[in-house]
Amino acid sequence: MEQENKFVSMIKDQRITIIPEFQLQSGIVLHDVSVAYKTWGKLNQKKNNVMLICNVYTGSADFTEVWSPLMIGKGKAFDTTIFFVFCANVIGSAYGTSSPLTMNPDTGKLYGPTFPLTTPRDDVRLHKLVLDSLGVKQVAICIGGSLGGMQVLEWALVGKQKDGDEEFVKAIVPIATCAKLSAWAIAWNEVQRQIIYNDPLYCDGYYDPENPPSRGLFIARMNALITYRSRNAFESNFGRDVKEHDNYDANEPPFYQVQSYLHYQSDKFIKRFDANCYISLTHKMDNHDISKGRGGDVNNVLKSINQPALILGLKEDVLFPISEQYKLAENIPNSEIITLGIEDGHCAFLNEIDTLNNLILGFIKKHLGEIYDAKIESEFDE
Amino acid sequence: MEQENKFVSMIKDQRITIIPEFQLQSGIVLHDVSVAYKTWGKLNQKKNNVMLICNVYTGSADFTEVWSPLMIGKGKAFDTTIFFVFCANVIGSAYGTSSPLTMNPDTGKLYGPTFPLTTPRDDVRLHKLVLDSLGVKQVAICIGGSLGGMQVLEWALVGKQKDGDEEFVKAIVPIATCAKLSAWAIAWNEVQRQIIYNDPLYCDGYYDPENPPSRGLFIARMNALITYRSRNAFESNFGRDVKEHDNYDANEPPFYQVQSYLHYQSDKFIKRFDANCYISLTHKMDNHDISKGRGGDVNNVLKSINQPALILGLKEDVLFPISEQYKLAENIPNSEIITLGIEDGHCAFLNEIDTLNNLILGFIKKHLGEIYDAKIESEFDE
Repeated sequence: MEQENKFVSMIKDQRITIIPEFQLQSGIVLHDVSVAYKTWGKLNQKKNNVMLICNVYTGSADFTEVWSPLMIGKGKAFDTTIFFVFCANVIGSAYGTSSPLTMNPDTGKLYGPTFPLTTPRDDVRLHKLVLDSLGVKQVAICIGGSLGGMQVLEWALVGKQKDGDEEFVKAIVPIATCAKLSAWAIAWNEVQRQIIYNDPLYCDGYYDPENPPSRGLFIARMNALITYRSRNAFESNFGRDVKEHDNYDANEPPFYQVQSYLHYQSDKFIKRFDANCYISLTHKMDNHDISKGRGGDVNNVLKSINQPALILGLKEDVLFPISEQYKLAENIPNSEIITLGIEDGHCAFLNEIDTLNNLILGFIKKHLGEIYDAKIESEFDE
Repeated sequence: MEQENKFVSMIKDQRITIIPEFQLQSGIVLHDVSVAYKTWGKLNQKKNNVMLICNVYTGSADFTEVWSPLMIGKGKAFDTTIFFVFCANVIGSAYGTSSPLTMNPDTGKLYGPTFPLTTPRDDVRLHKLVLDSLGVKQVAICIGGSLGGMQVLEWALVGKQKDGDEEFVKAIVPIATCAKLSAWAIAWNEVQRQIIYNDPLYCDGYYDPENPPSRGLFIARMNALITYRSRNAFESNFGRDVKEHDNYDANEPPFYQVQSYLHYQSDKFIKRFDANCYISLTHKMDNHDISKGRGGDVNNVLKSINQPALILGLKEDVLFPISEQYKLAENIPNSEIITLGIEDGHCAFLNEIDTLNNLILGFIKKHLGEIYDAKIESEFDE
């Protein structure tokens, strides 16, 4: 059942596939599951030149709206002349894959707050069905940060190809992520949920779509935004600067630049996202644990990742600290780790354009030379 | 006008002084200002054996409810046999000093959300009037953490004694604090205010005292509590442990131990604090800047602090990071800095009992030997 709502219509040129039946990690079975995805470039004859981008938390299937255009295209990290680039929306998101905004075919009503719990592993298994339907034999490289990075780790654990000895995913680039969500990140998610729950318009999730709990979502986003940056970035960007004039001497509190920033960004966000979807994604993140159902020992599971891995972390990441990236690097046997960012926090990976272009291109040439060179050669032939 | 409310009655044996008129840093003049305070021990003949404790954010005049009893009494850091210990409640707090819960004598109504903006400097100036009324000539040592530490820095800048060449405050121990509030801390305060504002019971601050916006205050406290701890402390205390049983496989989200902790602590808090008072304190903290009205250069103002200073910081402090403590130490000429805590955050200073006892006692013996030895000698004489 294809979902139609104002958020889905924000995403241009995406395709929607319907999966008739899909069992979640929780055991619950969903019917008529929509999966929204986009592709760029062409699948080669061997059907193995796939670059899989796992988008960020509140992103859509269109990763180009989040990542810099300077990273996309010929000679860039996301080279659409060499790779068949694929990006799909996660379950529970507002942008076209099944979510609280979707009609539940079993009841004929919107899922709303009854939408089931999902995990990054669910997303990977669902998106793989789409790749299978497109005839993809192998993913050359899988890249993603934050929630996307959790999926990247799950992709690494998908296993071998159906008809081959090689891993289905050949190489991975997890960025600013973790193998299991920390108590710290669960705590932030909990606060953000409670903020939304307490909005008078939330109505236990059965709110009027025309009059949603926007203020709660606004404040939850404000909270999240702080965790995406860092103390030092805020200090150098805003300090104690005051918006307009310093009316401190009147009996009205000054409106500091940092407040203005948080209000402006959160105001943009509530125009493009839904409260129930937001809550669904916080639970998805809380449920992330690659060791679940795989023996329970995260280090052992990481040690079983055979693929070459380029692990990227942010020095000042408050949410997924660099120590968690080192934990990945210490356990994934064929990995290298690079620390990005001088003082900014979690989200800074989206801004480190030159560094990322160089690092990802270098990693591709080292580990996926076959695909890269084949393409370059075929260009000479043309 | 003495305030009477359920929060004030929670504090045992405190005294309330009324200051007829008091001008705030903002220029606004308050009338009939209540100041709640407590004392322990005896003022000596020279009236200079005063230990001033500046309590934490949501604390009262009774610092013994926050600090460990193992730090209080003979031979301890807070030695009430040697010092006349003084602690007063800050303006805007719920525990007896004038606040949104107080009657405004100019209107005959409760201040509520109209209570004026205040600063830590206002508290210091107001509390000094009480010390003056008690005949105090000099404060031997001033100790406080967090918001209390901001007051400690303002106390250091009070200047000379009325009739002497010595500083009014002889020595200071600022703990886990800052010279001016960072954009980062302002951001957290802003989120917490917005959470309370959005509670349906808040009513722009004119709420029913019998039906206050407790849920908003609960969530704001939850948010604050996370910033008081650290990622690693949460991880080692809670990890991904689930309260009761792991009901992950049902379609109900697990209730993680870290959620349980936040709910439990925040539930305790809303029984002992008021929403308008909480908002008032966030603004007070935002307004903290020791350079305001003193030339605007924080480093220069710190350099003008003549007193010996023992600066204590927490290694993993998220809110007032150790870098801010180093900034104090680099600029205050006669200072030493000690880093406390292995992995816990901001609030850990309250738990470092043995270390604090040793450090503060050592500092006292080094810089206040005259007072310490005089007392010890007089004991031998008895």
